Formats: sequence, C-alpha cells, structure tokens
Amino acid sequence: MSDTKAYSIGVDYGTNSVRALVVDTATGHELAVSVFAYPSGEAGILLDASDPTLARQNPQDYIDGFVASVSEAVKLAGDDPAFSAERVVGIGVDTTGSSPLPVDRAGRPLALHPEFKDDLAAQCWLWKDHTSHAEAAEITALAQEREEPYLALCGGTYSSEWYWSKILHCERTSPEVAQAAYAWVECADFVPGYLTGNTDPHTMARSVCAAGHKAMYNARWGGLPSSAFLDALSPGLSRFRDRYAASAQPSSESAGTLRAEIAERVGLPAGIPVATGAFDAHHGAVGSGVAPGTIVKIIGTSTCDIMTSPLDQQIADIPGVCGIVPESVLPGALGIEAGQSAVGDLFNWYVQNLGRDGHDALTERAAVLKPGESGLLALDWNNGNRTVLVDPRLSGLLVGQSLHTTAAEIYRALIEATAFGSRAIIQRIRDYGVGIESVTMCGGIAEKNPMAMQIYADILNLPIRIARSGQACALGAAVFGAVVGGAHRDTGAAVAAMTGTKDVLYSPDRDAVPVYEELFGLYMTLHDSFGGVDRSADLGGLMKRLMAIRDRARRSDRA
Amino acid sequence: MSDTKAYSIGVDYGTNSVRALVVDTATGHELAVSVFAYPSGEAGILLDASDPTLARQNPQDYIDGFVASVSEAVKLAGDDPAFSAERVVGIGVDTTGSSPLPVDRAGRPLALHPEFKDDLAAQCWLWKDHTSHAEAAEITALAQEREEPYLALCGGTYSSEWYWSKILHCERTSPEVAQAAYAWVECADFVPGYLTGNTDPHTMARSVCAAGHKAMYNARWGGLPSSAFLDALSPGLSRFRDRYAASAQPSSESAGTLRAEIAERVGLPAGIPVATGAFDAHHGAVGSGVAPGTIVKIIGTSTCDIMTSPLDQQIADIPGVCGIVPESVLPGALGIEAGQSAVGDLFNWYVQNLGRDGHDALTERAAVLKPGESGLLALDWNNGNRTVLVDPRLSGLLVGQSLHTTAAEIYRALIEATAFGSRAIIQRIRDYGVGIESVTMCGGIAEKNPMAMQIYADILNLPIRIARSGQACALGAAVFGAVVGGAHRDTGAAVAAMTGTKDVLYSPDRDAVPVYEELFGLYMTLHDSFGGVDRSADLGGLMKRLMAIRDRARRSDRA
Repeated sequence: MSDTKAYSIGVDYGTNSVRALVVDTATGHELAVSVFAYPSGEAGILLDASDPTLARQNPQDYIDGFVASVSEAVKLAGDDPAFSAERVVGIGVDTTGSSPLPVDRAGRPLALHPEFKDDLAAQCWLWKDHTSHAEAAEITALAQEREEPYLALCGGTYSSEWYWSKILHCERTSPEVAQAAYAWVECADFVPGYLTGNTDPHTMARSVCAAGHKAMYNARWGGLPSSAFLDALSPGLSRFRDRYAASAQPSSESAGTLRAEIAERVGLPAGIPVATGAFDAHHGAVGSGVAPGTIVKIIGTSTCDIMTSPLDQQIADIPGVCGIVPESVLPGALGIEAGQSAVGDLFNWYVQNLGRDGHDALTERAAVLKPGESGLLALDWNNGNRTVLVDPRLSGLLVGQSLHTTAAEIYRALIEATAFGSRAIIQRIRDYGVGIESVTMCGGIAEKNPMAMQIYADILNLPIRIARSGQACALGAAVFGAVVGGAHRDTGAAVAAMTGTKDVLYSPDRDAVPVYEELFGLYMTLHDSFGGVDRSADLGGLMKRLMAIRDRARRSDRA
Repeated sequence: MSDTKAYSIGVDYGTNSVRALVVDTATGHELAVSVFAYPSGEAGILLDASDPTLARQNPQDYIDGFVASVSEAVKLAGDDPAFSAERVVGIGVDTTGSSPLPVDRAGRPLALHPEFKDDLAAQCWLWKDHTSHAEAAEITALAQEREEPYLALCGGTYSSEWYWSKILHCERTSPEVAQAAYAWVECADFVPGYLTGNTDPHTMARSVCAAGHKAMYNARWGGLPSSAFLDALSPGLSRFRDRYAASAQPSSESAGTLRAEIAERVGLPAGIPVATGAFDAHHGAVGSGVAPGTIVKIIGTSTCDIMTSPLDQQIADIPGVCGIVPESVLPGALGIEAGQSAVGDLFNWYVQNLGRDGHDALTERAAVLKPGESGLLALDWNNGNRTVLVDPRLSGLLVGQSLHTTAAEIYRALIEATAFGSRAIIQRIRDYGVGIESVTMCGGIAEKNPMAMQIYADILNLPIRIARSGQACALGAAVFGAVVGGAHRDTGAAVAAMTGTKDVLYSPDRDAVPVYEELFGLYMTLHDSFGGVDRSADLGGLMKRLMAIRDRARRSDRA
C-alpha cells in the first residue's frame, strides 16, 4: 500500500500568518501543519500612524514564511512512516487579495531593494488597505462614463481594495515607486513565481482568480481593460497592463516547478510542480468540496460566498455579485464570488464594545430563544454591504427594542441579520438562474457555534454541512498541488477524493422556517428601503408586525 | 416681620410614597419635608403574580400617609422659630392619575369594608395598571363608530390607564365589586374629600385636571360623555356618570376645610382650606413656574410635558397631544399635556441590560462627543410613543452603527433621541399656534445630568432652565394651598412669589444647533416612516447622510 502513497502540500498565505499543510492525495488526510507568523509590523501588517486606512506587508515575510512553514511541516510529516519528501508530488498556493506589489524588470519586489526597504509604497499593498478610496470611485465613474463593460461582472462598482485602484493611488502619491516599478504583480502570482523562478512579469503564471476578480480581466472584452481606458485614468498607466502576463489561468495549471535553491531549504526534492496561485477564499471553497448547487461560505470576520456553475451553462450577469469569473474556482466552471463585509466582526464588535458577557455566555442564553421571540430585527451593515448592494457607506440598524430587550436577544438578532444577509445573496443568485440546494460552511464560527449554524439552516431553509477540514484553504491549495502533480486525473477527481464534510447535518426546522420567512420579508423591506432600492416600501406597519410575531412566539412558548 | 408669615402645605401622592412639604407662602422657602412610604404590597403597589399588567393600591395607605407625612413635616417645621401651626393657611394635594377607586354611597372606599379588604378589584386602580387594554380599545372604537367628539382633545385614542377603561374592565370581570360600588372617584378627588369630609360622590370637589384629562370631561360637549354612549359600552355604565359630581373645578377652588378629627392627628388647627386636587405632573408644572410660552418637562422614568395657553386664545385641537383641558393646570388658562413613554426608563434599560458601565461613566465619555460625531440616530420608542403618534405598539430603533461604535456613543444617541422626541412634540404644538420660547425642566435627570440638559438645549434650540425646587410637585400643591388660604390675590401671584428656577441657564450652542437641525430632519424621516405617517419618505440616503454628518464632525474635530 505505502508504495502508492503520494502527498501534496498546500500553502495558505493569510493576513497575519502563512500555513503549510501536508496532505495525503488519496484521502485528504492531513499529516502535518505548520504556521509561521509574519514578523514584520504589527501582526504582520505595516501600518502608518497618520493614516488608519493604510495596510501593507513586507514581501520578505512571504519568502521567509514559505521556507519556515513548509520545512517544518515536511519535518513533522516525517513522523508518519509512510511519508517521505520524495513522495510529495505537488505544491499549491493561495494568498489574500487583491494584494499587489511593485516589482522590478526581473520580478523582484522593489521592497527588497535597499533604497525602497522602508518605503511603504514599495511594499505589498494588503487587501484591506483602503488608501485608494478616491481612485476606486474614479475608476467606477470613468467606466460608467465611457460605458465600458468592465464592471458588469463585479457588481458595477470597483473597490478600493482592488489592483488598479492601488496602482493608480501609488502613481498619484508616490512617484518614485511608481517610476521604479516595472510591473505590479498580485501576491498570488508572486509566490508561485518566486518558488518556480518564473518571475518575469511578462511570462509568469498569472492567476485567473486574481486577474478576473480584481483586475477587470475577462475574455469577453479580450482580457484586460484597454490601454485607452487605463491611460485616461492616468497617462502611461497602461504600461502596467502591457508588462504583466496578458493571459491568466486556473490553479489546475502548473506555474512551473520548485527551484533547487528553495527545495533544498525546505527539505524537498527540486522539480516538484507548483500550481498557479489563487485567493484564499476560492481555495477554501475547493477544500470544502465546492460543487454545482452548493454554496460554500467561508465565515470569518467577514464572509466569502463561493459557488460554481458549469461553464457551458450561460448565465446572465448577476447585479451586485462581486465577481463572476470563468475558472476562478475550478477549471471548466464559472466561479461566482459574493460576500458580506462583517460577520464574525459584527459579533466581536458587539461583545467587545457593548456586551457585559462573552460569546459563550451570550450564545447559551440566545440559544433558548425562539425565532421571532425577541421582536428584534437587524441589518448586518456595520461595515457596509458588499453583496448585493455593493455600498460601503451603509451602516447597521436595529429595530424592535423594548424596555425588556436583553443583550442575548440583540446578540441573536445580529446572528440572524447575517443569515438574512446571506439569504439575500442566495436569492439574488437564484433569481439569475443558478440553483442552490445546499450550503457548506467553513471557518471557526461554523465549527464552534451550532446555534448559529441552526439559525442559518432555518433562515436559508437549506441543509447545512460543515467542511471536514479545519484548514480548508490550505487543503484547497493541496488539492491543486495534487492536480498539477498528476495524482488525480482531473480537479474534480481530486476534490472528490481529498475533501468532504463532517457527519453533522443542520436541517431546517419545520417550525422555525415560516417564522423566519416572515421576518426575512421584513428584513428585505428594511434592506430595500435603506439600501435605496425601493422607495415605495411601507415601513409604517413594520414595528407592529415584529410585535405580532413576537407575541405569537411567546404564546406558542406557553402552549 | 414674623407677624406676617403664612405657610401652606403641599401633599404629593406619588407611586410609591407620599411627601408633605411645608412652604413659606411669601417666598416659596421650603421649611420641612417628610416622606411616607406606602406600607402595602411591594413598594406600595399591590400586585397579582398571574397578571403582570395589574397594579393596585390600598386606599388606607393614602389616609395613613397623610397623617404620618403631614404631622412629621409640621413637627420639623417647628424648628423654624417663625413657624407655627396656626400660621398654616392652606393645604394642596396632588396624586397620580388616572387612579380611580370604587366607593360606597358615603364615599368610603370599598377596600375599607371588611368584605372587600382582600379583593384587588376593590382597591385603587393605579395609573400604571394596564389590565384594561381591551376595554380602552373598545372605547376608542365606539367613539369613532359613533363619531363622538370625546377623543378630540386626548389625541384620538383612549388609554388603558384611564378612568372609564378601568371601570368597564371591573364591570366585566369583578361583578361583585361593580355591584357594590356606588361610584368611582379619582384618587385626586378622594384625598381632599376625605380631608374635608365632603365625601359624598355627588357633591365632592371634582378635579377638572383628572376629569378633563382622563374621563372625557369637557364643557364643549356639556361635561361628561353621554349616558347613551356609556350604556352602549355596557348597559348601566352611565350610573357612574350620574353619581359623581357633574362639574369639575381647578385647584384654585377650595374643596372644603380640614376636618377636626384629622387636624388633631396632624397637629394643625381645624378649618384650614384644602384645595381641589389635581395630578402630580400638573402641580409639578405649577411648582416649576409654568407660564404661557414656557413648556415644563417633568422628566422621570417617563416624561410629562405641561404648558398653558390663555383661555381666551382659541386654539385648534392638536392631533396627537394627550390632553387639552381648560384650567387643568392654572385657572383661566388652557392646560396642555403631552408626554414621552420612556426617558429615564430608556437610559436605565440601556445601563441595566446592555451596558458594562453605569450612568456616570457613560455620561463622562458621552459628554466629550460632538453632535453628529457618532453617526448614530435612534428612535426613543422602546415603550411606544405617547405623543404625537399615540401608539403603544411602536418600538425602539438604532441606526448608523459601525464596527467602531461605542457604548457611550449609543448612550448619547438615546439621550438625543428623547430630545428629538421632545422637539417633535414642541413642533406639533407650535404648528397649532401655541408659542413656546423656553423650557423649564424638573426631575432628577434635570438636576443631575448637565450633559443631557445641554443636548436638550441644542436640539430644542431653546433656553433651558431648571426648576428651583427639587420637589416641584409638592411645591405646586403648596401653591394651591396658599391660594385657597388667601395668601395671594390669585394663582398667578402665588406662582410668581413661591416658585422659580435655578441660576443655571443652558443656552443653545451655535455650532451644535445646525448639526442637530439636520439630524432632527433625519429623525423625523424615521419618525414619519416607522410611525406610519408618511409612506413617501426616502430612506435610501439616510445612512449616507448620517455618515456625511459624522465625517464632517470628525473633520471639524481635527481642525
């Protein structure tokens, strides 16, 4: 048996650390994991005291982090007698995004040049850097003005988190870096390039996930936005279009093979295939077993929703959905990405700023409440709305408070609000012909909070499963390592063999579903009114309907 | 000098205790006060474990409370060498309301008959008893159906707290008491009747304040509601109309003189004039120096707003305002009563259920915030809306939360919400031609929370003064004691001599006023939308406008 064993390694670059996971390609069994915390800045993030919207990262941390985490994981895997470094067939990589960094002609980060070592503009611009807010608005406005198609597939609004906003902001504010930068590459491309030595920006393997979701890359308009459009934003900006691979590919395509120098440092043989990179959420969906009809929710501080749909099935553009990109998740499938700006963050905000009690105590008291019993309803917009309204300048709302409203009731209402927000997304996707029959969750909340999962099942009226792996992103990366390493005939087979869900199944509760159905109607009334979608919604009866639902729930309690 | 000294005694019956205050009629100087806590029930309230809406009081407590508090106050006043019991010229009384009690033919409370001693229906039905909710709705519906004018002056909705609702509920649910009751008298009439011996329900002094605000008494329709109307509610109900004084009078009219038996027990001479009763809030306004153009806000757990307007100045009915009753506050003036269902209660709810900190700590942090800086806006409806929407089935709302919103910001937003609610009331009253140029506050919050007072001044855009007396209700009662005792030529002179405000003046802040002006516009958008007044209000831009106000406030902070 052990003769046939093959292993792959998934490397998952998060916001504060990188994690390497060694996986059995036949079963998905996880042999070893190692996490390396980025040493630079605060928890790996370079900050600017005078500008709270700035968030950068030192590219050296990515290099050091690969060596440290992979060498350690390989060493730990050696505890399993079946494992040997020679049996590692492939490596996959995912990173945060959009996190672009300026590089020189050879693809070496400017930040690694001594003269730019301390220049924040020369570092990697982390996804959550919002310095480029004005430039994002400018890009959206110009695309609209010129009637360009580029925003049709990203909800109609370009984000300050994304590739071109950041480059344009650098162009405007840091002329030295802008001048010295030969190209700007996504972190998700930089890492595989660095590992394989294919660092030439013109020819390196470019992630269709990164390019498609963040850089307005789509075959429909022939790849990247036109030079005319980019130069209209800033004369000469199109040089960054022309100095970076013109076509992008899915993670099932190899980016090259591990170069000897690095292989030696991590204790692996040289020449192992490295998969093209992608973003963490997308690989998280793969590591959770994403398949048509299933939406994968990667629930963290915010939430990414990832789905796939067969490439040959034509679907219309879905207004308000962050991104629809061919092969961004799986080869041969359309990748659909949506998301919510605050989920775990919303619960943490409440506990840290307002609560007297922690998550566990609030959950315990919230769990015994019946749907509707609190009389409360909330909008989950404390950090704006990413999908389907795509509007960062929305805020939270809570309605239905009495003089008896408790902290646990509000806590539950916030959880319910995120589930209603999720249902609004699912409804929108369904409205455009994409079927959704089940949900797979991954992330800490999914594993630790059965009450929240049951609320989601009841509100979404869908069965909910939990990803088997607690590190689904790294596992997804390992799946592509296995694919490029030839351990499976195709990605579908690799996903089927290596991923899965836990035994637990959250089924919608027959009594809860109709109550939440009614509350969801009221949620959508608030959503459409405050979201500016519908001016005619009647809010005059909303508080009374919440009270009627509450009174009914309490009566049924006594019965 | 001391030869000319005259004193009056104000007796203020509150929800949990009665307070007697001895006052110098020339200056309003308070010589002595004594408080007697009602011994029956819980903190003076008789409860029913099976019905949380029930709240009754033992009439014996009123009798014992008068003797105990007045005798003690008279004794304490004796410390002043100028004082002597012979110089007490009059007594005034106020009570909670509507708090009716069933009496026998002689005007003796049924509760004092041994056979009804333990019958809750035979006790005084305290103002906050809400057992008669269904009957109140029935009265409102019948008045509307019959197109009766009776509700025009009480906002269009009859309340479960009021006289006829309670009697009708007793009629329906406690036939023995209903049968034994010869009449139902308001507590505000019972006490002066008992003190003077004028207890015959047919002829006792009846308070126009109680009758007008709670029993649909108004000269416009010839006094009380018609027998036909009452009998349509319940056959025979009109007997309670016909067995209780048919005309009512202001507190400047004497109810009789103190009878010897009681005088002896409290250490006063017999024959001292006793003023006709009224409700505590109305006397509180008098004790705060109410005058045309000034609204007096008695701020407690809830808030009463009291104004006067010259009787000869015709004003239209003001929709949504609780009561407009000739002479209910001062003789010769129209009394206007409005109110908010939760003010102190709202802040207490927040601190007790949600806060990690107490009022003082929250106030300290909230005080340094600039208007609009939190980005928050709240509706103050956690206990429904008393004025101007008159709708108990409304609820609280909070909007504008981010992931950085703090507990102190929410606390301040709740205070602001109550001030916006107050402004909505003032605006409504002004819209109907009643001028309001200043505000006088009384109650604990007014004395203890300068931040709240400044917020009110800025939001109302009116100068705010604080009643000089910390016991304005009892002082108001003493004013009427002085009037019926002949110490002043009329009530106006007595008010001028005996009441006043503290030296502190809260003036609107020039920078704050325009910010709150804009926020009030948004408050009214929420108010009218959720209050069912206006379906066409556009909420789509509200969150963005709150953010714009917030951002501007923060920028001005830095400047």
